[in-house]
Amino acid sequence: MSLVVVGSVAYDGVETPAGSVERMLGGACTYISLAASFFTEVAIVGVVGDDFRSEDAQLLAGRGIDLAGLEHAPGKTFFYSCTYSADMNERTTLRTDLNVFADFEPKLPEHYRRQPYLFLGNIQPALQRSVRAQMTAVRAVGGDTMNYWIRETREELLATIKEWDFLLINDSEARQLSGHSDLRRAAAAILEMGPRTLIVKRGEHGAVLFGPQGHFTAPGYLLEHLVDPTGAGDCFAGGFFGYLAGRREAVEDPRELRRAVIYGSVMGSFCCEQFGVDRFRTLTRAEIDGRFQEFREFTGF
Amino acid sequence: MSLVVVGSVAYDGVETPAGSVERMLGGACTYISLAASFFTEVAIVGVVGDDFRSEDAQLLAGRGIDLAGLEHAPGKTFFYSCTYSADMNERTTLRTDLNVFADFEPKLPEHYRRQPYLFLGNIQPALQRSVRAQMTAVRAVGGDTMNYWIRETREELLATIKEWDFLLINDSEARQLSGHSDLRRAAAAILEMGPRTLIVKRGEHGAVLFGPQGHFTAPGYLLEHLVDPTGAGDCFAGGFFGYLAGRREAVEDPRELRRAVIYGSVMGSFCCEQFGVDRFRTLTRAEIDGRFQEFREFTGF
Repeated sequence: MSLVVVGSVAYDGVETPAGSVERMLGGACTYISLAASFFTEVAIVGVVGDDFRSEDAQLLAGRGIDLAGLEHAPGKTFFYSCTYSADMNERTTLRTDLNVFADFEPKLPEHYRRQPYLFLGNIQPALQRSVRAQMTAVRAVGGDTMNYWIRETREELLATIKEWDFLLINDSEARQLSGHSDLRRAAAAILEMGPRTLIVKRGEHGAVLFGPQGHFTAPGYLLEHLVDPTGAGDCFAGGFFGYLAGRREAVEDPRELRRAVIYGSVMGSFCCEQFGVDRFRTLTRAEIDGRFQEFREFTGF
Repeated sequence: MSLVVVGSVAYDGVETPAGSVERMLGGACTYISLAASFFTEVAIVGVVGDDFRSEDAQLLAGRGIDLAGLEHAPGKTFFYSCTYSADMNERTTLRTDLNVFADFEPKLPEHYRRQPYLFLGNIQPALQRSVRAQMTAVRAVGGDTMNYWIRETREELLATIKEWDFLLINDSEARQLSGHSDLRRAAAAILEMGPRTLIVKRGEHGAVLFGPQGHFTAPGYLLEHLVDPTGAGDCFAGGFFGYLAGRREAVEDPRELRRAVIYGSVMGSFCCEQFGVDRFRTLTRAEIDGRFQEFREFTGF
């Protein structure tokens, strides 16, 4: 085991122009851990309710994911539903039932605490900090957040990300967090807040990594069949951080960081090809490396 | 001389979050020819009115641009004004006075007709065809169009682009022309319409080239100071096609096409750094090549 992932485990209802699914496995922790599991050993921390299906636990366990930190609480699992616009660039939330997730207090099993890599999915910053504090020998911490925490719990968030090596957010969050509309200035301001490296996710337009060695731009992958973008950003995070953890990377080699961004993009792109986590049921490492090679081919000049 | 450029020569009024200018030199032909002039010899075809300032003619002539095909007609020069949204991704037209441009009938001076490269800026498709027909020894034709012609003069446009080697349009135009929202499918459909190569311009998100050898993705340049995006797409076209013309490129070497896309991106990025064409008053080839090198650095992995 090497990477601990914390975040929501949920059931999602999703409607896209390609179809709809009433209820399927979802949640940031689920997507991040599944994507990362192709690169390194993963252990998750989350909470589910009585309705959590054993087949969903089996999917995760089948990918070697340690579920010792997945708490089972009385009540229902977090449920979220949404619908996408025709071009799938806009998402409208239909329902958010926090259920057992409302009282989530992540407690790390003893054997998690000595692990070297930690990724904090988008949850309340104070909880992210409490998890970070439980880790005793961490080499690198990455995390995500969202507009709600930036707006409502700004001071707490700033104290939290100060301890992180990597912050992964989307462009509107980067602008909101920094107060700068210009992405370069936004990034410079955010790097002053603590994280050594910032990755700005831009959806279909790829991602940009900003760090001490300047920036690196990865384009989006042009999908043949976009089915469901839910979880793509989390799969980017899982691919990115999972790759680094798998390399036992001390997060300072700029070439490895660039490759990690591409692996993140690769995992985000696969995620969109089927509903929910379905693509990860059949995906192989050979397919992943094939797409990594495709990125080389369509970006080189 | 090697490249003939046809299109509008105009005066623009522009308001952006960085400031505003009531009246300045603009127009597709102006931007395309200025950008291309850093790579090859350029001759323009257009029309201006009595109010066209000699200092504007001098700017073009000073970059070695042949103005023999720039007709002076009684009346006023085409005037266009617009205002940009806070993030500069949306433009609202305030005024369009076609003036002398309304009766534009491009006639090529004799010495233009034997030139090997032709770029047709966004004007009525029938006029683009008439110019193409006047060229006697053309090796490569590229052109642009817009939503209005796609909607209003579809058949004429299809007959026009059928004869082109390169079509350069933005993503919404590609979707509108093809009827496909998915960019890969849109591109495949458009390549069936005639052009050997399609370049889809995506504004701040770069450009994608689609051709017989697959596709190539160039990211946008992260500007330090975005002042005015007016003309960036035309400067992309000028950099792209000017580079190919300057290399005497038979438009079939995929490596040269990729470099041309990067040079297009470089020229589009410089365009945005000052209002109107101002950046081209001081820009040097060394700065251009320096930015080309920057693209290599922030995209390589």
